[in-house]
Amino acid sequence: MKKKILVLNGPNLNMLGRRQPEIYGTRGLDDIIEVLRETFPDTDIEHIQSNCEGFLIDALHACADNGTDGVVLNAGAYTHTSLALADAIAAIAPLPVIEVHLSNIFAREEIRRHSLIAPVCAGSISGFGERSYRLAVRALQDML
Amino acid sequence: MKKKILVLNGPNLNMLGRRQPEIYGTRGLDDIIEVLRETFPDTDIEHIQSNCEGFLIDALHACADNGTDGVVLNAGAYTHTSLALADAIAAIAPLPVIEVHLSNIFAREEIRRHSLIAPVCAGSISGFGERSYRLAVRALQDML
Amino acid sequence: MKKKILVLNGPNLNMLGRRQPEIYGTRGLDDIIEVLRETFPDTDIEHIQSNCEGFLIDALHACADNGTDGVVLNAGAYTHTSLALADAIAAIAPLPVIEVHLSNIFAREEIRRHSLIAPVCAGSISGFGERSYRLAVRALQDML
Amino acid sequence: MKKKILVLNGPNLNMLGRRQPEIYGTRGLDDIIEVLRETFPDTDIEHIQSNCEGFLIDALHACADNGTDGVVLNAGAYTHTSLALADAIAAIAPLPVIEVHLSNIFAREEIRRHSLIAPVCAGSISGFGERSYRLAVRALQDML
Amino acid sequence: MKKKILVLNGPNLNMLGRRQPEIYGTRGLDDIIEVLRETFPDTDIEHIQSNCEGFLIDALHACADNGTDGVVLNAGAYTHTSLALADAIAAIAPLPVIEVHLSNIFAREEIRRHSLIAPVCAGSISGFGERSYRLAVRALQDML
Amino acid sequence: MKKKILVLNGPNLNMLGRRQPEIYGTRGLDDIIEVLRETFPDTDIEHIQSNCEGFLIDALHACADNGTDGVVLNAGAYTHTSLALADAIAAIAPLPVIEVHLSNIFAREEIRRHSLIAPVCAGSISGFGERSYRLAVRALQDML
Amino acid sequence: MKKKILVLNGPNLNMLGRRQPEIYGTRGLDDIIEVLRETFPDTDIEHIQSNCEGFLIDALHACADNGTDGVVLNAGAYTHTSLALADAIAAIAPLPVIEVHLSNIFAREEIRRHSLIAPVCAGSISGFGERSYRLAVRALQDML
Amino acid sequence: MKKKILVLNGPNLNMLGRRQPEIYGTRGLDDIIEVLRETFPDTDIEHIQSNCEGFLIDALHACADNGTDGVVLNAGAYTHTSLALADAIAAIAPLPVIEVHLSNIFAREEIRRHSLIAPVCAGSISGFGERSYRLAVRALQDML
Amino acid sequence: MKKKILVLNGPNLNMLGRRQPEIYGTRGLDDIIEVLRETFPDTDIEHIQSNCEGFLIDALHACADNGTDGVVLNAGAYTHTSLALADAIAAIAPLPVIEVHLSNIFAREEIRRHSLIAPVCAGSISGFGERSYRLAVRALQDML
Amino acid sequence: MKKKILVLNGPNLNMLGRRQPEIYGTRGLDDIIEVLRETFPDTDIEHIQSNCEGFLIDALHACADNGTDGVVLNAGAYTHTSLALADAIAAIAPLPVIEVHLSNIFAREEIRRHSLIAPVCAGSISGFGERSYRLAVRALQDML
Amino acid sequence: MKKKILVLNGPNLNMLGRRQPEIYGTRGLDDIIEVLRETFPDTDIEHIQSNCEGFLIDALHACADNGTDGVVLNAGAYTHTSLALADAIAAIAPLPVIEVHLSNIFAREEIRRHSLIAPVCAGSISGFGERSYRLAVRALQDML
Amino acid sequence: MKKKILVLNGPNLNMLGRRQPEIYGTRGLDDIIEVLRETFPDTDIEHIQSNCEGFLIDALHACADNGTDGVVLNAGAYTHTSLALADAIAAIAPLPVIEVHLSNIFAREEIRRHSLIAPVCAGSISGFGERSYRLAVRALQDML
Repeated sequence: MKKKILVLNGPNLNMLGRRQPEIYGTRGLDDIIEVLRETFPDTDIEHIQSNCEGFLIDALHACADNGTDGVVLNAGAYTHTSLALADAIAAIAPLPVIEVHLSNIFAREEIRRHSLIAPVCAGSISGFGERSYRLAVRALQDML
Repeated sequence: MKKKILVLNGPNLNMLGRRQPEIYGTRGLDDIIEVLRETFPDTDIEHIQSNCEGFLIDALHACADNGTDGVVLNAGAYTHTSLALADAIAAIAPLPVIEVHLSNIFAREEIRRHSLIAPVCAGSISGFGERSYRLAVRALQDML
Repeated sequence: MKKKILVLNGPNLNMLGRRQPEIYGTRGLDDIIEVLRETFPDTDIEHIQSNCEGFLIDALHACADNGTDGVVLNAGAYTHTSLALADAIAAIAPLPVIEVHLSNIFAREEIRRHSLIAPVCAGSISGFGERSYRLAVRALQDML
Repeated sequence: MKKKILVLNGPNLNMLGRRQPEIYGTRGLDDIIEVLRETFPDTDIEHIQSNCEGFLIDALHACADNGTDGVVLNAGAYTHTSLALADAIAAIAPLPVIEVHLSNIFAREEIRRHSLIAPVCAGSISGFGERSYRLAVRALQDML
Repeated sequence: MKKKILVLNGPNLNMLGRRQPEIYGTRGLDDIIEVLRETFPDTDIEHIQSNCEGFLIDALHACADNGTDGVVLNAGAYTHTSLALADAIAAIAPLPVIEVHLSNIFAREEIRRHSLIAPVCAGSISGFGERSYRLAVRALQDML
Repeated sequence: MKKKILVLNGPNLNMLGRRQPEIYGTRGLDDIIEVLRETFPDTDIEHIQSNCEGFLIDALHACADNGTDGVVLNAGAYTHTSLALADAIAAIAPLPVIEVHLSNIFAREEIRRHSLIAPVCAGSISGFGERSYRLAVRALQDML
Repeated sequence: MKKKILVLNGPNLNMLGRRQPEIYGTRGLDDIIEVLRETFPDTDIEHIQSNCEGFLIDALHACADNGTDGVVLNAGAYTHTSLALADAIAAIAPLPVIEVHLSNIFAREEIRRHSLIAPVCAGSISGFGERSYRLAVRALQDML
Repeated sequence: MKKKILVLNGPNLNMLGRRQPEIYGTRGLDDIIEVLRETFPDTDIEHIQSNCEGFLIDALHACADNGTDGVVLNAGAYTHTSLALADAIAAIAPLPVIEVHLSNIFAREEIRRHSLIAPVCAGSISGFGERSYRLAVRALQDML
Repeated sequence: MKKKILVLNGPNLNMLGRRQPEIYGTRGLDDIIEVLRETFPDTDIEHIQSNCEGFLIDALHACADNGTDGVVLNAGAYTHTSLALADAIAAIAPLPVIEVHLSNIFAREEIRRHSLIAPVCAGSISGFGERSYRLAVRALQDML
Repeated sequence: MKKKILVLNGPNLNMLGRRQPEIYGTRGLDDIIEVLRETFPDTDIEHIQSNCEGFLIDALHACADNGTDGVVLNAGAYTHTSLALADAIAAIAPLPVIEVHLSNIFAREEIRRHSLIAPVCAGSISGFGERSYRLAVRALQDML
Repeated sequence: MKKKILVLNGPNLNMLGRRQPEIYGTRGLDDIIEVLRETFPDTDIEHIQSNCEGFLIDALHACADNGTDGVVLNAGAYTHTSLALADAIAAIAPLPVIEVHLSNIFAREEIRRHSLIAPVCAGSISGFGERSYRLAVRALQDML
Repeated sequence: MKKKILVLNGPNLNMLGRRQPEIYGTRGLDDIIEVLRETFPDTDIEHIQSNCEGFLIDALHACADNGTDGVVLNAGAYTHTSLALADAIAAIAPLPVIEVHLSNIFAREEIRRHSLIAPVCAGSISGFGERSYRLAVRALQDML
């Protein structure tokens, strides 16, 4: 049976491809998801993007009941400020959530070097641009 | 006349009973509210839960105009990160808001030991499981 | 059988009613205990006050052997500085100890916002004036 | 051609005029905007207020496409906690965003003295009450 | 009657136009003052620049007796290190002092993000280049 | 009528004259008190020394009722660790308490540079050896 | 032509499979490398393990001259303490180095949450057990 | 002549054998002292336990005059909070005081990893359970 | 022979009596010095006030050569920021310098609780209003 | 059967007896080991000294396989900086490792007061000069 | 053509040779400059000393216009507190300024280990006594 | 007799001339040493480079016995992390060790602004590129 994976993107990722291309690249989020689906034709890849912390929490909770097998989460700036998002990930355990970042967050300013959600994620991948998503889906496939 | 009290629950409390039962117990939020209403039949107990910081702020503001006499607030993880929620409590003063927590937040990890909302709450009750709500309603009744 | 509860008051609480009434109210400690006994006629309420950290520790230790069912502890300023008192509470576990404060300690100066004893207490109630004691006895009754 | 400026107000600013008048004055937000429009008849002044961090981010993103020439932003408490909002401002660069505050945030408690959004704003104006908005619009006019 | 405003510039501002033009622009201090006087022909604009902390304090004290109606102060690096300057501003209260900065001090290195004088100033304007002075004079005019 | 002043000495001061004479001098506590009484024959100088924090608090409380006009307090190491002692001083306000130290506490190791009791004392005198007591009694006489 | 990748393991990784299996799993380092070579038959996978910081630096330097195309580096505890290792990675730039960790270092004790080498690595993968190596090799292949 | 050694135990050590046996073992304090006396029949071993900081200081002072040759001190939680106890040890120098702990204090929570008394003790032994006392007496015998 | 004492006052003390009377009293600096001279007719009391850190250093240096026997120094805000002033005091050792403050600096905001000059002063007196000067002169007389 | 104990000495201990004798004594390392072997003739005492962190880790690992019963470790300055050494001790658990120091590390400069290896050692002995080794061997004998 | 170098000395250096000779040596500043001129007869060595931060800034500014080729700066205590001095050095860039210290500032108390001016200086030389000046002039000659 | 000086280079300095030329220049280490020997033909200049902390310590120890008169040490990144290297320098005192850095370490990232070895070095020279070595040898010649 096809595995179902949610790719969940947080604040400002809808602006991808339009903003600071030297950090985030020039490709838009839709293109990234499309390539992802093409790369993993045997996996059912859902995609949600929201700028609202509460909505992201709702989306994670929903996974506990809707047959999702794993989550690839790019929480954007909420990575560094949202303890509530971390609690939401813990609340749906043992469903695996993989943290991804386009840029190497450790090479940026101090406030972006600490992740509140990392401690409750199954693993963490950062710095590979849009390839980060691909590696995360692959990691989930290995786990499931 | 019946007093009207709002029980306001923040992020992830909708998952109560499904998540980390060794910390939060096995009872769901609806059951807790129901027991609360049975315990205080002469009090009008409203209940709102939301994972969205902005919605919780809206709900607090509404109390200033809709005849609410007091609030029992379990702000979940926003307790530790939301200065805006603290401002909302200050904005509806002198309406009393009681901070409650199911677990003893002081016995958990560092980031959960500091409450941003406590300084503007009328009082604080934590560590008694669902009994925390009951004690808070009683405290409000004493005050009003 | 009647439950036996120790109300244990720490440093400077003997001056209650004489000192900073805008923070602590105008009622003396004896009056507070008397009202407490009237409110809970079916509970045997012992009362000890001491300004001496060592004596408070002795009093907690004694509870392990003299049939006390629970403790309501207002440790005053020792709340923030006495690790030895925290150890004493741990030493008599699983006897429940409830931390109380008259004022909302979180709304006061920095040094009073951190409790060394909270992590080993069963629960914590602060900010309700003398009502804090009443809520604590009630919480103990619920637990026992 | 008329310049189009968005005045964007964050959490709790809808309570203006009802809350802590010794800090924020007695005039409501609608009055302030009305006076602003009267003062600058040749400028098209849009106004949005929201208590939701995600909605504020959406509103900023929208400016990139809807012909807005500049933004006057009073982010309220999110000023101090929202890295996501700072990212949103960066995402719509080089559109100029001016940070404003009614009160002198530097004269208030520690947590309100640091602005996460200031580093990505074109400039910052605080402490002039509702005049802060007026100065900000004027600054934008100078820039455009 | 003409209002009298002192524009007081601190250390290194005499080098303006010669130093780090990418941060401070290419115009010299004298030009800026001249433009300022032309912009506000109905205001009596005094100008003092000094690299000496003690002299700046003397200049502020003098305002208490010489009919000055308000001060626009760019304290340069003393903004971040001079508690004595802050005391001088407090000493001439309620005479309004507006803090200005050419650059957005919040976007620079850590030590330049904290202002010792902001808490005692009537308001603060930064990041608008030489326009910061113009906005400050306008703000003073509104206040007086 | 003769003024009554309590000289209250804290932990380890009973060892004076026997311990670290390069810091504390060679004279014993009794000698110091005797000289003090000879210097101020018209003042009634009580003297208490205790190594017990609780006993020192009791002694301060007693002053509120026994006709003491002022206190000269050398709290020794409790100066730096006892918040309860600070509360005791606050509890007997407005009775003036003068903090004294034999050595210049600011020239010693870090932990001895911060005084918890200074904020609630009427004044503070340190570094003059046994002369510190003499200056403190004189200061009290001036005040009374 | 076959790509040549160095898998470089730091201190204590030679004890893998013998030590704290609940954190690091039960498989030895040799087995992990063997599986890796089987998984990527078309890649030339070199393997070096050393407990010596200086030797690891030598090994990295060597890559600059010996035709290595990329490095997968598990620096063990040196991740958190070796600035010299970070310099070595920078010294062989633009040769890509991928940081891997078996465990989720962010979920462990404070000192293990900060990586000195991350800022100079091309990307970072942690928390997937021995799969971390596999994902890293794959990421390198994508990049090369 | 027989050497005289004081074994001085601080707060909560009277509860030994009754409390947290996984940390402190199951043997009571009296048994430990008895075994100690049997192990060192040629040494005169005094024993004092008190929960009162002031009493422990008195006991240390007494050693200066009563022929005690050395002290084995387990200060319990006062190890981490009592600067006054450290002063008392300094006050009886050069009488050697050996600090002991049953558990390895460095492997416990942060606040228990720093000893205020260690800097003035002759040496420090921790982590060997009741054997810590035996090693300390032996160390004293070697020194004397 | 008459002793010669320099009373040296730092920044903003020339504004005494005009500024924040609730903290500093209503008497001007000249009056204070006059009363001081009347109180100590047998002492030659010089007085210098300056707002300039460099001038204060010059004045201290001069004492080394002009027959001054001691200095009473109220360094104002430089107390907390001027390491150079501390060096100047050290440079004229062993000439005694007494630090004085009108207000109890320990009861004010954080930045005013730490004195950079205290470690090199002979003693420190604060909180007694203008009496602080009197006590300091007396302390110097005792020493000389 | 004879017990086998490794005495492992870290950086700079080969210079013992030649360096800072006021801290470390005048005896060389070889002498200390010789005395140790004479004191414990029934124990097989191995000795290794190295200035290289990696070599010390190798030596600890070797103990897991070569019949060593316990380790006495003086890690010198690596005590305070080597997390890798701590990991090596954890990697050979439950083999007991006793931390020793010649000097009382707690009485020295700040950086030497914190031990990274203490949390994973069976116990810790410091401040007894070369006697520290003797006590550690004895402690190991008691344990084995 | 002769190079022109300014040797600029800050606060308290005029006291050289009279103050703390164990740290700063016994030679006066004039002697040092004289020796310097003798050592470098082909260089035009100007010398300025001032205790006033503002005057030092003026002196640096003057170098931009008066043909000075480089500056040797011993800023004394202003090294650690004057951001304005750092700005002045930046303001005259690319004129090279060499920071010198007589003593090894890193071996002194904490506050003297951090230099605010170092980041904008061409290089830094400390710990060689008056030889520091000689090395600095030589370094400047090499650069010019 | 010819003086013998060891130039000791730490981690990554073997990569000099190949790495980050904008910081470290384009010349290789061998060239630098060669020029150094040409510049000081009357001095015997030994050269050792190692990436291994332990080896560098061994090399320093060797100087105590092999007739070395002084050391020029560029410890690279170990400057900031190796307390053991600092101990090694102290262990060979009073042999003078001069700390050098090619770049101005104070102008780089935070972690590179603090030197652990500076407090035990005779002096420190940084920021002059390869000239730093030349100045250090000259400083040693002056001292010897």
